[in-house]
Amino acid sequence: MVFKKITLIGRSSESFDAAADDAIDRATETLDRVKWIEVEELGVEVAGVEDREYQAEVVVAFELEG
Amino acid sequence: MVFKKITLIGRSSESFDAAADDAIDRATETLDRVKWIEVEELGVEVAGVEDREYQAEVVVAFELEG
Amino acid sequence: MVFKKITLIGRSSESFDAAADDAIDRATETLDRVKWIEVEELGVEVAGVEDREYQAEVVVAFELEG
Amino acid sequence: MVFKKITLIGRSSESFDAAADDAIDRATETLDRVKWIEVEELGVEVAGVEDREYQAEVVVAFELEG
Amino acid sequence: MVFKKITLIGRSSESFDAAADDAIDRATETLDRVKWIEVEELGVEVAGVEDREYQAEVVVAFELEG
Amino acid sequence: MVFKKITLIGRSSESFDAAADDAIDRATETLDRVKWIEVEELGVEVAGVEDREYQAEVVVAFELEG
Amino acid sequence: MVFKKITLIGRSSESFDAAADDAIDRATETLDRVKWIEVEELGVEVAGVEDREYQAEVVVAFELEG
Amino acid sequence: MVFKKITLIGRSSESFDAAADDAIDRATETLDRVKWIEVEELGVEVAGVEDREYQAEVVVAFELEG
Amino acid sequence: MVFKKITLIGRSSESFDAAADDAIDRATETLDRVKWIEVEELGVEVAGVEDREYQAEVVVAFELEG
Amino acid sequence: MVFKKITLIGRSSESFDAAADDAIDRATETLDRVKWIEVEELGVEVAGVEDREYQAEVVVAFELEG
Amino acid sequence: MVFKKITLIGRSSESFDAAADDAIDRATETLDRVKWIEVEELGVEVAGVEDREYQAEVVVAFELEG
Amino acid sequence: MVFKKITLIGRSSESFDAAADDAIDRATETLDRVKWIEVEELGVEVAGVEDREYQAEVVVAFELEG
Repeated sequence: MVFKKITLIGRSSESFDAAADDAIDRATETLDRVKWIEVEELGVEVAGVEDREYQAEVVVAFELEG
Repeated sequence: MVFKKITLIGRSSESFDAAADDAIDRATETLDRVKWIEVEELGVEVAGVEDREYQAEVVVAFELEG
Repeated sequence: MVFKKITLIGRSSESFDAAADDAIDRATETLDRVKWIEVEELGVEVAGVEDREYQAEVVVAFELEG
Repeated sequence: MVFKKITLIGRSSESFDAAADDAIDRATETLDRVKWIEVEELGVEVAGVEDREYQAEVVVAFELEG
Repeated sequence: MVFKKITLIGRSSESFDAAADDAIDRATETLDRVKWIEVEELGVEVAGVEDREYQAEVVVAFELEG
Repeated sequence: MVFKKITLIGRSSESFDAAADDAIDRATETLDRVKWIEVEELGVEVAGVEDREYQAEVVVAFELEG
Repeated sequence: MVFKKITLIGRSSESFDAAADDAIDRATETLDRVKWIEVEELGVEVAGVEDREYQAEVVVAFELEG
Repeated sequence: MVFKKITLIGRSSESFDAAADDAIDRATETLDRVKWIEVEELGVEVAGVEDREYQAEVVVAFELEG
Repeated sequence: MVFKKITLIGRSSESFDAAADDAIDRATETLDRVKWIEVEELGVEVAGVEDREYQAEVVVAFELEG
Repeated sequence: MVFKKITLIGRSSESFDAAADDAIDRATETLDRVKWIEVEELGVEVAGVEDREYQAEVVVAFELEG
Repeated sequence: MVFKKITLIGRSSESFDAAADDAIDRATETLDRVKWIEVEELGVEVAGVEDREYQAEVVVAFELEG
Repeated sequence: MVFKKITLIGRSSESFDAAADDAIDRATETLDRVKWIEVEELGVEVAGVEDREYQAEVVVAFELEG
């Protein structure tokens, strides 16, 4: 019943909300018991991408199996 | 003319903007002279809610009555 | 090839995303080689504006000319 | 359904756990819907008390009434 | 015997000391058992005031009644 | 001989010490060469649990295999 | 209507208030629309000056022209 | 009547409370006027000790002699 | 030619400047080569003193003898 | 296209640069798409090693597979 | 005699020292009275460069002309 | 068996590594049981020295005697 935390960076060409959702989507696809996420950093990549890439670094907390 | 600061956590099933607005709405309903708010933390509750609940912890600054 | 960082505060009556975009727009109008931005602070001005003014303080990194 | 956070300092002549419990006890006596607490600071008062006074500064999150 | 902490912003046209005193004066007028204050932030408002307004954000610690 | 760090949250109905031990127990069951842990956050869940659940977020440092 | 922030260090042989004023004076001499300043650091130079030199590092926020 | 602060790390095979007490014991044995301590870091040494060694890094404040 | 840093808390019934000076006075009385000080914390003791006691926690940097 | 971050501590008997390289070497051996690293902490182990062991705690960002 | 601070990121294929020197070289080429620099962040770019690019984000303090 | 921590600033005309070594050399000359050091700050003095002076502020942990 211990929780573990990992750090992901979601990315979106639309918005910070979509970037955070991108990271949560990835987490919930591969982990069964995601509990909550905390936003650590927001940023925008401007060079080397077509338009602007919104990025959200999030910490994902999930429950480890027995 | 002294200001006071309190900490609220607004919640929304839509977005971080709506979560911040939720806290500001509550503050302006009950306090007459809200001046500004500062976002302290953004997070998303994933377990124990229907879909995802966006949360914005904000500090609300308002003017105390004379 | 040294990078420089400056701090801007974008403002919008719509959302935090639009406030960040406002600052990036200004940076890319006047600087040739903007690389990325980091969000430092989010806030909302409530008094002294018509409705609510969303603000995003961002650090803009750009490449200095040779 | 907005949450509010307040800061209390619990005190105990026994331990840090008891000092945190002291603050939680006080919060739950006077507030109906306490959700969680976060420990902000731990300290010990040595002068001006009989033996040692363990102190725990905690942030208490509770749900505001509709 | 639990302590509580609140955050006030004192203001003065004279100095940072006077701004801190302004917040302490307000606190001691309305609270019986103020113990100490901690300065969190110092700033100066330049626009929208006659001259300069020194501001001191302080955390006030006081003892809650039994 | 490189070390790696991961973040776990131990939980206990008894005390913060037991919550930290809970995380260390889990780490040492699944990892061979745990070196030390650092406490990052202490908190208490009050709602949605039977009594109170003490939580200790800890960073666990261990040595990676050759 | 974007704001920009720059960092200055004001200096005075008298006091921290005068050191902050020194930085604000400089800012308002060369910039038209200074809005507010935030104190980042206070320090005192003791060696290499006649008596003591009070220093205030401040962040100055001003409005960029259209 | 100036206060001084020093940093000690107390150690115990039992608990964080005992580790903090270990540092306070040492401080009060060698310093006459210890006023208070602040806990800076809690950690546990796992490798190179028999079982587990709880550690508490504390800042000790004491009054300097006249 | 290595520098060392120590932490002192100066106290004054007058002002924060005087509290910082109190700590610098003490440092320069007992140490030959004080270089600079950095203000770490400002606070005011309200209970247990006659009026108000301004306190300045400062870090003092000085040069160690050869 | 989500990024993940992990924390490693590289070690070297030579320098901080070599310690950081040690961690990057390890990361690039086992992960295909390392993007960048950020230095979190630098330290030196003095006891329990032959001479001195330079350590660099780094956060490694890499792209997760589709 | 006011100081100003700006933020630069120096880059090198060799080492962190060389990356910091790169930023200082740039600063001293274009500014007459550079006083000191403070290292804010160290990092290494791994993707999109030939080998590894060491980066040092530094704050440069210089004296403004009369 | 309590540990104590002190803060030193090592200096070198060569590199940050040499500056850290300078502080460690001083610590191990005068203290018997130095355990580890942590780098707190890196900086470079540019004015008032012949070329550039690299500085490393380090915290030194050592074991107190009996």
